[in-house]
This record gives sequence, C-alpha cells and structure tokens, in this order.
Amino acid sequence: MQSNPNFAYVRGQVLPLEQATLHISDLSIQRGYGVFDYFRVFHGKPVFLDDYLERFHASAAAMNLEVPVPDSVLREAIDELIRRNNLPLSGMKMILTGGYSENGYDPAEASLIIQQQPLILPGPEMLEQGINVITHEYVREVPRAKTINYTMGIRLIGEIRRRGASDVLYQQNGVVSEFPRCNLFIVKQDNTVVTPADNVLLGVTRKNVLALAGKKYKAAEGTVTLEDVYGAKEVFLTSTTKRIVPIVQVDERVIGNGKPGEVTLSLLQDLVQLEEEKGARM
Amino acid sequence: MQSNPNFAYVRGQVLPLEQATLHISDLSIQRGYGVFDYFRVFHGKPVFLDDYLERFHASAAAMNLEVPVPDSVLREAIDELIRRNNLPLSGMKMILTGGYSENGYDPAEASLIIQQQPLILPGPEMLEQGINVITHEYVREVPRAKTINYTMGIRLIGEIRRRGASDVLYQQNGVVSEFPRCNLFIVKQDNTVVTPADNVLLGVTRKNVLALAGKKYKAAEGTVTLEDVYGAKEVFLTSTTKRIVPIVQVDERVIGNGKPGEVTLSLLQDLVQLEEEKGARM
Repeated sequence: MQSNPNFAYVRGQVLPLEQATLHISDLSIQRGYGVFDYFRVFHGKPVFLDDYLERFHASAAAMNLEVPVPDSVLREAIDELIRRNNLPLSGMKMILTGGYSENGYDPAEASLIIQQQPLILPGPEMLEQGINVITHEYVREVPRAKTINYTMGIRLIGEIRRRGASDVLYQQNGVVSEFPRCNLFIVKQDNTVVTPADNVLLGVTRKNVLALAGKKYKAAEGTVTLEDVYGAKEVFLTSTTKRIVPIVQVDERVIGNGKPGEVTLSLLQDLVQLEEEKGARM
Repeated sequence: MQSNPNFAYVRGQVLPLEQATLHISDLSIQRGYGVFDYFRVFHGKPVFLDDYLERFHASAAAMNLEVPVPDSVLREAIDELIRRNNLPLSGMKMILTGGYSENGYDPAEASLIIQQQPLILPGPEMLEQGINVITHEYVREVPRAKTINYTMGIRLIGEIRRRGASDVLYQQNGVVSEFPRCNLFIVKQDNTVVTPADNVLLGVTRKNVLALAGKKYKAAEGTVTLEDVYGAKEVFLTSTTKRIVPIVQVDERVIGNGKPGEVTLSLLQDLVQLEEEKGARM
C-alpha cells in the first residue's frame, strides 16, 4: 500500500514498521499502563505541535511517567519519520508506556514509541448528514491525562453498532463529559456555545473551537447535563482527526431539526481556515 | 539467572522469552485493551487450573474477546512451558489482548500470551508483623473482569510508599471493595468473616478462603464499609500469589491489637492444607 508509513521509532531506534515491537514485559501489555498523544502532519509540517507536546508531557506527569529523551530528541525523531516516510497527509502518534517491568507491575524506564499513520478525515456524508450517538454512564479514571486505557470505549463498540450509532457520549448522574476520543459541544437555543468543563480531556481542537466560537457567539466551558444536550439547538463533537462532526441524534432524541446546524458548520469553516493560517495546507 | 523461565507462548509460537514480543499495533499497547489470569505451578502441577481457566474465559467474554485456541490447545501450551522451563515453583500468566488492530482501535484476532515466572511468596516477617494499607476512592471499570487495566493501582505506587504502606484498598462512598491485585476480608468482633460482595474480582483464593471460613465460623459475602474495616477485630487480604496476608493498619487506624489475628492465621493454615490436598506440594 503506497500510502502506508514505513518507519516507526521504538525505544530509541527508527525501524521498519513491521519490526516495531515491544517485549511482552512492557507495562502496556502487562498492565495497560501508558499515555499517548496524536497530532496531524500536513505536507511535512506538524499542526499545533507545541500544544500536543505540552499535553503529552502533562499526561506523562499525571501518570508519574518520565519521557526518556529531551524534547529536542523527540522533535528530531518526529522530523526523521516525516522525512523518511514522506506521507502527504498523516497522523503522528506518540505512546509512552511504563517500560519493561521486571516484576510486571512496577514501572521501569518508559518505552517511547512514535508511529506515523495515514490520516482519514470524515467523509462529506458525515458532515452533510451528521451522526447519531448513544450515552453511557462512565467517567474516565484520570480525565486530564490522555492514558491508553480505552477499556470502556472499545468494550462498547458492539453496543454502539447494534444501536445504529457512531459513538458513545459518557455521562455520570446526568452530567455529560466527553466521548472516548472526542470532546462535546452544544449550541443552546440562544446560540451560546458550551463545552463540558470537568472530567474531560483538554482537547487541542476543543481549545481552538472554543476560541473561534468566542469571536462570534457567547462561548464558555460549563456544566452540561444530558437534558441540556437533548434540548440543544445543535450538538457537535471535536477531535484532532475529525475536526468538527455534527451530531443529529443522541439516544432516541433528535437534536434540533435533525440536520447539521449553521453554527456547527460555520465553526468548521473557521477551524479549517485557522489550520490554513497556521501553515497547514490540504 | 538459574531460576528464570526460558520460554513463553506468543500468538501460537513457543519462543525464548527474550524473543517474546508483540507488534506495536497490538491493542494492549495502543489502547490498554486486554484481560489476563494467573495461576501457580508447584513441581509441574498447576494449582486450581480449572477455576482459573473458567475465570479467564469469563473475563474474555465480558470484554468481547475470543480466546483464539480451544482449551485443549491452551492446556497443551501450558504443559509445554511447564516441561521446557522446568521450574519447581512458579506462576503462569495468560494474557489475552485485542490483537493487532489495523486502525489502532477496533479489536482484531486476539493475541494470546502465556508466560511462566518465578513465584515469590510473602516472607515470614509479612505474616508475623502484618502490613499497613491506605485507602483510595475508586471502583474498577469492569469489576468482574480481570482486565489488564491497572491505571489507578500503578499510579498510586508512589503514594503508597510515601505513606509507609504496602497496598491500597479501594472504597467508594465509604463502601470498600478490593485491592488492585487482592481481595479483602474482615473478621468482626464476633468472629464472623465477611468479604465484599460487589465491585470485586471473584478471586479463586477468595472463594476457597470463604469456603474454609464457613467450616469454622459464620462466613458471608456482604457490604463492608470503611467503618466496618476500621472497627474489625482482624483484617486480611487474599490473592493467588500471596495466599493470606494479615493487615494491621488501615489509613491511620490500627486494627484490633495491631498484630496478625488468630482467625487469619488459622485460615492460612487451612488454605495451605487445602492446596496440599489438591496435590500441590511445596
């Protein structure tokens, strides 16, 4: 496959992807212990890299993991993969695990992996029609850290499909937080844009969309209940890979008129423009 | 190291341990997604193997994972490792992960790993003096499944050490459940033995100790509050590797007279005897 990346960085070495392995003593395999982050690369240029590196370090610190190389080495490794893989449009994933543990429980020197993957953006029908989501009672264990623990999200894949939905929105005691891999926004009837303040990952796209929304509308972080979601004029999600995707149904409730809304689509335009201004061309 | 195991089973192959690796696309590395189980092997003979295999299958089913080989092949692989590694006293760990995922999120054919490790039993001073534990507000995400997710337990290692403790007991809203890797028992002032009923892993040692306790005392599963623990006559933990370990302090509270209690130590004797009856000799 022409578009497949060829090289990955694993524990200090740049290797052909098929040789990119970890020993089974690694704490990701033994105990699911690690953090990661993910940013896009457009034509050789990482998008918002500083933001993602900052969050990667924050996640590592929250989980008592130490990035085993200085940022200069990390950035060089990223550059080397970009150069050697030569992909026009891609995502770069950095994973940091608890390392090769002697007793299978106590962390050792962290394992750092960097891999470059083809990037799949949402298709036009997803933007034209919007998606359906379901809800599930859950809060991530360490919401501010981007851990590799997706126990709940992946376990729910079957239920999401059975119910004809595309994703699952977490709520606890009627207060919503986030999706497994995306943040949530609602647009109230008066066009106020709100995203949950607590128990969420601080998404980079979330931050950018909140700032863009603030230029046109009232926009804030706050408490968002399930009732707020059901009664919203518009609902959408944000993520690094998906940017903005309209949500037209939550559980059995149709949102607004059941079609992607004006505010949502105008913010998507603004986001694409911001990316272009930052030098990222499609 | 003489006592180190030499061979492990990884995705259908028996390999020297140093070659036992998983590709970085494995869902354990990408998303911390997997289950496992662990049993002891004394002089070539697995102890309570049927119980552990049953639980392994239950964990896999709870996480929508399919064991990729029939039990006959699984048992043959275990036998082969026992034969080739020839360890007198060991633990055997079976790990089942979401497999080599194409997109890093959706499960593929599950990866099955079996590895044999030296077994370290608690030293005599641990049984003579007992241990201190702290508590932390948390409930595991899928308590009945033995998932590889130890995000919380490992994240708390530093705090446990700073507070001079050996382990952490999870509680939520004042109701206790379990330790990251062990079950909890309390002995009330009237010698009733109780272990938490809900939000716990159904430990094999827990089951055996509950049955043994029922022969001598009133014994039951039930709701155990933090106040019950603080006010108990005796407190102990159970696990496959540790059997029974007396707990003499929880948070800042000394349990009973601060020494391992009679009921605890008598149940430990009974447990060792049961293991011997089952053919496991030390």
